[in-house]
Amino acid sequence: MKPLILSILVLILLPGRAVPANGPISEATETCLGCHALSTPGIVADWKNSRHSKVTPKEAVAKPPLERRVSAEKIDEALGKNVVGCAECHTLNSGKHPDSFEHGGTNVHVVVSPQDCAVCHPVERTQYDQNLMSRAHGNLVKNPVYLNLADSVNSIQKFDKMRTTLQAPDEETNADSCLFCHGTEVKVKGFRNRETSQGEMKFPILSGWPNQGTGRINPDGTLGACTPCHTRHGFSIETARKPYTCSTCHKGPDVPAYKVYEVSKHGNLFSSHQKSWDFNKVPWTVGKDYTAPTCAACHVSLVVNEGGDMIAERSHKMSDRLPWRLMGLIYAHPYPKSADTSIIKNKAGLPLPTELTGEPVTQYLIDSKEMEKRLKTLQNICLTCHSSEWTENHFKRLENTIRTTNEMTLTATKIVSTAWEKGVAKGLAQKDSPFNEYIEKKWVEQWLFYANSTRFASAMGGADYGVFAEGRWYLSKNIQEMLDHLQLMLKIRK
Amino acid sequence: MKPLILSILVLILLPGRAVPANGPISEATETCLGCHALSTPGIVADWKNSRHSKVTPKEAVAKPPLERRVSAEKIDEALGKNVVGCAECHTLNSGKHPDSFEHGGTNVHVVVSPQDCAVCHPVERTQYDQNLMSRAHGNLVKNPVYLNLADSVNSIQKFDKMRTTLQAPDEETNADSCLFCHGTEVKVKGFRNRETSQGEMKFPILSGWPNQGTGRINPDGTLGACTPCHTRHGFSIETARKPYTCSTCHKGPDVPAYKVYEVSKHGNLFSSHQKSWDFNKVPWTVGKDYTAPTCAACHVSLVVNEGGDMIAERSHKMSDRLPWRLMGLIYAHPYPKSADTSIIKNKAGLPLPTELTGEPVTQYLIDSKEMEKRLKTLQNICLTCHSSEWTENHFKRLENTIRTTNEMTLTATKIVSTAWEKGVAKGLAQKDSPFNEYIEKKWVEQWLFYANSTRFASAMGGADYGVFAEGRWYLSKNIQEMLDHLQLMLKIRK
Amino acid sequence: MKPLILSILVLILLPGRAVPANGPISEATETCLGCHALSTPGIVADWKNSRHSKVTPKEAVAKPPLERRVSAEKIDEALGKNVVGCAECHTLNSGKHPDSFEHGGTNVHVVVSPQDCAVCHPVERTQYDQNLMSRAHGNLVKNPVYLNLADSVNSIQKFDKMRTTLQAPDEETNADSCLFCHGTEVKVKGFRNRETSQGEMKFPILSGWPNQGTGRINPDGTLGACTPCHTRHGFSIETARKPYTCSTCHKGPDVPAYKVYEVSKHGNLFSSHQKSWDFNKVPWTVGKDYTAPTCAACHVSLVVNEGGDMIAERSHKMSDRLPWRLMGLIYAHPYPKSADTSIIKNKAGLPLPTELTGEPVTQYLIDSKEMEKRLKTLQNICLTCHSSEWTENHFKRLENTIRTTNEMTLTATKIVSTAWEKGVAKGLAQKDSPFNEYIEKKWVEQWLFYANSTRFASAMGGADYGVFAEGRWYLSKNIQEMLDHLQLMLKIRK
Repeated sequence: MKPLILSILVLILLPGRAVPANGPISEATETCLGCHALSTPGIVADWKNSRHSKVTPKEAVAKPPLERRVSAEKIDEALGKNVVGCAECHTLNSGKHPDSFEHGGTNVHVVVSPQDCAVCHPVERTQYDQNLMSRAHGNLVKNPVYLNLADSVNSIQKFDKMRTTLQAPDEETNADSCLFCHGTEVKVKGFRNRETSQGEMKFPILSGWPNQGTGRINPDGTLGACTPCHTRHGFSIETARKPYTCSTCHKGPDVPAYKVYEVSKHGNLFSSHQKSWDFNKVPWTVGKDYTAPTCAACHVSLVVNEGGDMIAERSHKMSDRLPWRLMGLIYAHPYPKSADTSIIKNKAGLPLPTELTGEPVTQYLIDSKEMEKRLKTLQNICLTCHSSEWTENHFKRLENTIRTTNEMTLTATKIVSTAWEKGVAKGLAQKDSPFNEYIEKKWVEQWLFYANSTRFASAMGGADYGVFAEGRWYLSKNIQEMLDHLQLMLKIRK
Repeated sequence: MKPLILSILVLILLPGRAVPANGPISEATETCLGCHALSTPGIVADWKNSRHSKVTPKEAVAKPPLERRVSAEKIDEALGKNVVGCAECHTLNSGKHPDSFEHGGTNVHVVVSPQDCAVCHPVERTQYDQNLMSRAHGNLVKNPVYLNLADSVNSIQKFDKMRTTLQAPDEETNADSCLFCHGTEVKVKGFRNRETSQGEMKFPILSGWPNQGTGRINPDGTLGACTPCHTRHGFSIETARKPYTCSTCHKGPDVPAYKVYEVSKHGNLFSSHQKSWDFNKVPWTVGKDYTAPTCAACHVSLVVNEGGDMIAERSHKMSDRLPWRLMGLIYAHPYPKSADTSIIKNKAGLPLPTELTGEPVTQYLIDSKEMEKRLKTLQNICLTCHSSEWTENHFKRLENTIRTTNEMTLTATKIVSTAWEKGVAKGLAQKDSPFNEYIEKKWVEQWLFYANSTRFASAMGGADYGVFAEGRWYLSKNIQEMLDHLQLMLKIRK
Repeated sequence: MKPLILSILVLILLPGRAVPANGPISEATETCLGCHALSTPGIVADWKNSRHSKVTPKEAVAKPPLERRVSAEKIDEALGKNVVGCAECHTLNSGKHPDSFEHGGTNVHVVVSPQDCAVCHPVERTQYDQNLMSRAHGNLVKNPVYLNLADSVNSIQKFDKMRTTLQAPDEETNADSCLFCHGTEVKVKGFRNRETSQGEMKFPILSGWPNQGTGRINPDGTLGACTPCHTRHGFSIETARKPYTCSTCHKGPDVPAYKVYEVSKHGNLFSSHQKSWDFNKVPWTVGKDYTAPTCAACHVSLVVNEGGDMIAERSHKMSDRLPWRLMGLIYAHPYPKSADTSIIKNKAGLPLPTELTGEPVTQYLIDSKEMEKRLKTLQNICLTCHSSEWTENHFKRLENTIRTTNEMTLTATKIVSTAWEKGVAKGLAQKDSPFNEYIEKKWVEQWLFYANSTRFASAMGGADYGVFAEGRWYLSKNIQEMLDHLQLMLKIRK
């Protein structure tokens, strides 16, 4: 067989593997690979298959604008000439990393942070920093109401003398529960020596580790992690664009985005036809690279049509395409202005974006003009496959669902408030947690599970999920159950 | 490389894409594509990948009988000579479509309906018309009992003076809830002008739109939609044959077919090996094109063995292979004779296929001979991979499960009836909804969720789902909970 | 095109199908295939695609040690010279099979059992025999406490005179419920004649059939089945290595391994990248054949690095890599020593591995040294992709979760015990089932669903599942609900 035929065969048969060999590797990375190919073969193999191992930053910067995967205008020659290997990231900004330690002759750090990634990807880092997800730790922990809810979930309950008492959750429980996704605070507790195949070596002792939460506080003080979506050590855009990745945090009844997507027509098409899609192309061409949106297509990615016209700019501030915040809070409301939501205070003095009656706390939330702008940005993507009529009506229906689910939450709030007023339960006014009694927990489920789920189902066209699975059936049943409970409590008190 | 080699390579490397270019396109469709390739690139790209864009009806009719994908014996020459493009469907039967409007020099309609599809696919349309799914709108909305259940789910509940009142659901809520799958009634409310990239253009205003429910009432008065399964604008048989498609409506706890399939051995094999199956072949050869059935294989598709012998004829009247109706109603029962179930009346005068005691209302249901015939049709498919003993015993076990789950429902019915009789809840006899109180909602869950799920799990060999996930554990716990509630209500009344 | 090019093309284009034709087939199997290619085409096609149809045992034994898929040192020449077809398994050890019957001139048996498989795979059979899964039938049925729990789930409840009575479940219900996965007892009830396409033929009548439970009791008296994981008639290692297979039994809330895996980063990577993995290679090379573990990688498979160094030996005694038993019982505890857990007795005389207070019954459980050994075996796999610090901290966190979930179970146990003591519920001391009343069922959910799920989520890094989906939210809410119920019962009794 002639060489030409063989080359053509290779190019045709192995799409995406056309790069015949990995690119130039720095001496420092060569040293790392020397041991780690044996000690952590999975990491090394993953990296070898990655784009990081094949393209130098210098080459990456030189791509045509729409095809660029790095946003730095210029990258230092010394860094740019070799592919992005172990040493390139794990020795970057070394002085800023308290977890940096001498390892095989070099100072390396364990926790690569957004400021390291920002050397090549500064725009993405800045955008992500303005994204709620980068603040997910503080937005939970620095908000006393949310923290109280978290504690009511994670505490150990003891039973004695016909009552229960709560013992505050330990750090490991928090890391294994809410902070798994929200992000822990990773701190250097010291260093210690360990036996390794290379003899005794020094390693940092980290608390809150391991963790890949989106709002992780890193030892260098930066907020957030890139790896929940751009998984180590392949950092593949394919991974980030697949809804499975989003689902690791967005699947539970509190935020069932993936479950709703699965029963939507979009999810149906993704599941049925993804094998023929190209998840690695930049920019991402609708109809060619994919035929139905994934989470990334609607919320993050740079999308173009076959003519190369821009349909949506890439943004790692996901709220750029989100007028409403549908989830997590008592009522759906216009998106908060600041990524740091712990600064919000409502009229009642609570750190909540609405009053207990649902009225939005407007000064902390985006205005209708900004909402309209974000909606248009999102709708541009819908319009690549749907008519204007279809698209407008879809969002009108969502707005109606926001209104009705907020009303169903208000009804539940009135019932629990009556329980507080009439003294059959104790809330904030009684100096007690509003989340620790049975009727209060039912109230939480009304908004955190059922109203949220119904809105997601409406927003993403996965209605089946919003009826019986975790939606309107429970919204209505739960009210009846709360009312029954209230009436019973009042009756037996007499 | 020689041209011959290249051609062979293309043929081998691109299976299913062997059609070298799209077929002849009508002038009208060329006009549509002129703008829409830019304005809705996703739709155009989807269609370009579709069989509709590659094969003319004339060619389709000429295929050998078993390979035919169209059932019309003859197709009009003018229509048949070009591939099936935009204009072919969206201008067909124009005079019958109230949503038809002048658009770029042609009268087009938005909502392509079964009578349009029937020009090439008349047998499928007729069969589907005899299928419960095409009547899903009326079967819900024209049945006062079911409508009352739907309203109890979708109404907005208000709380005042220690009681709740229900405000009937608005049209948008219904469209976003039950009717999302059951189908809305799509009506033309008028026309309006819109700014487009081509200047101001007229478009119809549609209520109940968007919707892709299986029993949609179209503006032309026809019932049903083909697109829930044959998704626009690829209309691919691959999509329809994948269980993900069925799952968009058949996944919730009321009808968990997909969830049961997932934990069944059939689903296990589908998930593990689908990548090497051929979902596009007609007819579909067991063992060659697929090695374990999907929903379509058992319930719809034309299945043959490798020798080309018929194992099952294609039918879009899915009940052709279904002796029992397992789901949706209070008790499982023989399949209804008519697709329109709103005509059924039981002895108590209720539009239900059984009495409240479970006794079937035989005159509206198929008889044992017809049941036997349908069972045999279904079992023919089982027998391609299972022995007679295996197959018979499997269905004996299902019949046992139907009996026991009906009994567990009867027990729940007796408890709720006692509550009605003793005056601690209000049912039909008390001129109240039988679905709006707590104990009544528990009763609904007994049959709509737990008995249904247990039967599906038995029918499809996904037992894991029918025990703890949504099956017998809850069937038994729910009875205990209902009884506790009844006893408590009676006790505190004294 | 030259023949050489064609051959190369075939070899390149059809990876895994490089075996040009099926191997030598025995005369007896030829006879089977003669009819069964027509009567059960799906089975024959599945087998034809299988390795069994392509490789003779003789060839299989001759492979290099790490690549061997058979563990027999030597296989009888007569058996070894042909590929493993119908007759090779279904006529093996014929005299030991009570379901053996004369069929087309040969004695064949329906239920191929582990002792048949053991002719080529003796090590796997012995290991599996020491695995809890092979004893799953007896471990449930011979343990009066578990059997009572199963009966409380599967019984038919009747309602009369304001109380319910339980009617013990029939055999078919048990086979369709718990024993579907745990395994039925398959017995020969006689023989009968059936009409077939070949005229009347004799077949055995089997009770408890069909069944593919892991602990099935076979007609030949052997325990267990290989086919739940190595599905008939492909018996492919690819199937067994995919988590979908494990999920057929390990998905419900009682044992949500698959659901947790799905939301874990491992599951995320499997779902996103499995299409480029090689599930058929033996041994299985981390980083090359797969880039994130499936169930099999951590718990069963022979895993090596690219240099061919052993990372984990294959074991079909899955507990070889499991220090703790996290699921199924009231409290998590060190793994039982014996696969037969029905022999365990605690101080209270109950067949449980812990006291009701959670204290482990140490003489039946592995000691800390054995636990440490198993943990190291498992951690070796983690260490291929994770640092020592990461790995150790992960398991420390799991141990913390075991402790806290056991505590949350203890609290629930104290509440139900108080109900028993105070006479508002009846437990063992009152000669009643501890599983049939409402508060008792809540108690069961505390450990069987919520504590289990939380531990799985912690063990496999799928935290999202362990918080709101079926984890800590319910652990805490359930206690509050049980306490409310207890207090109410005490109050209204007065």
